[in-house]
Amino acid sequence: MALGDALAGDIAAGKAKAQAVCQTCHGIDGVATEAMVPNISGQQKEYLVIQLEAYRSGRRQHAQMSIIAQMLTDDDIGNLAEWYSNIKVTVEPPA
Amino acid sequence: MALGDALAGDIAAGKAKAQAVCQTCHGIDGVATEAMVPNISGQQKEYLVIQLEAYRSGRRQHAQMSIIAQMLTDDDIGNLAEWYSNIKVTVEPPA
Repeated sequence: MALGDALAGDIAAGKAKAQAVCQTCHGIDGVATEAMVPNISGQQKEYLVIQLEAYRSGRRQHAQMSIIAQMLTDDDIGNLAEWYSNIKVTVEPPA
Repeated sequence: MALGDALAGDIAAGKAKAQAVCQTCHGIDGVATEAMVPNISGQQKEYLVIQLEAYRSGRRQHAQMSIIAQMLTDDDIGNLAEWYSNIKVTVEPPA
């Protein structure tokens, strides 16, 4: 898949897919529900696409993610990246 | 290194190290300065430790990160994870 294709994602379809396959660990808002799970809210779209493709191809490995990524189409990856990258994040460093 | 050791990080030392080695790409507040770089603000401490160790050991690969992680001590990893995980993140999903 060309990176550009995945970057034209559908945000509503991404939200629906996120509710179906990502929410349990990453939250629908991208905030992790467990310590070993990364927050993915507002993550860069390109980064999300590349990492999901890396899990799907086996270049990046993780017990759960390697299996889940196998179930994702190119469109799913683009849509999920669209959803999570569009969550607005505000950060406040420690004083 | 035991995970527990790295989790007792020093936040001030982590900030100083972040300014020295992470800031250019990840920002001192963990907000990425380029599209292919992940935001790491408020990321789970355990996740940050595991990923830095994975880059250092070669289990996870990336052109820049594989080199940078080689320069980090166990203490550095714990301190960096302490700094970035303590950045408070507020999220707002699309309406």
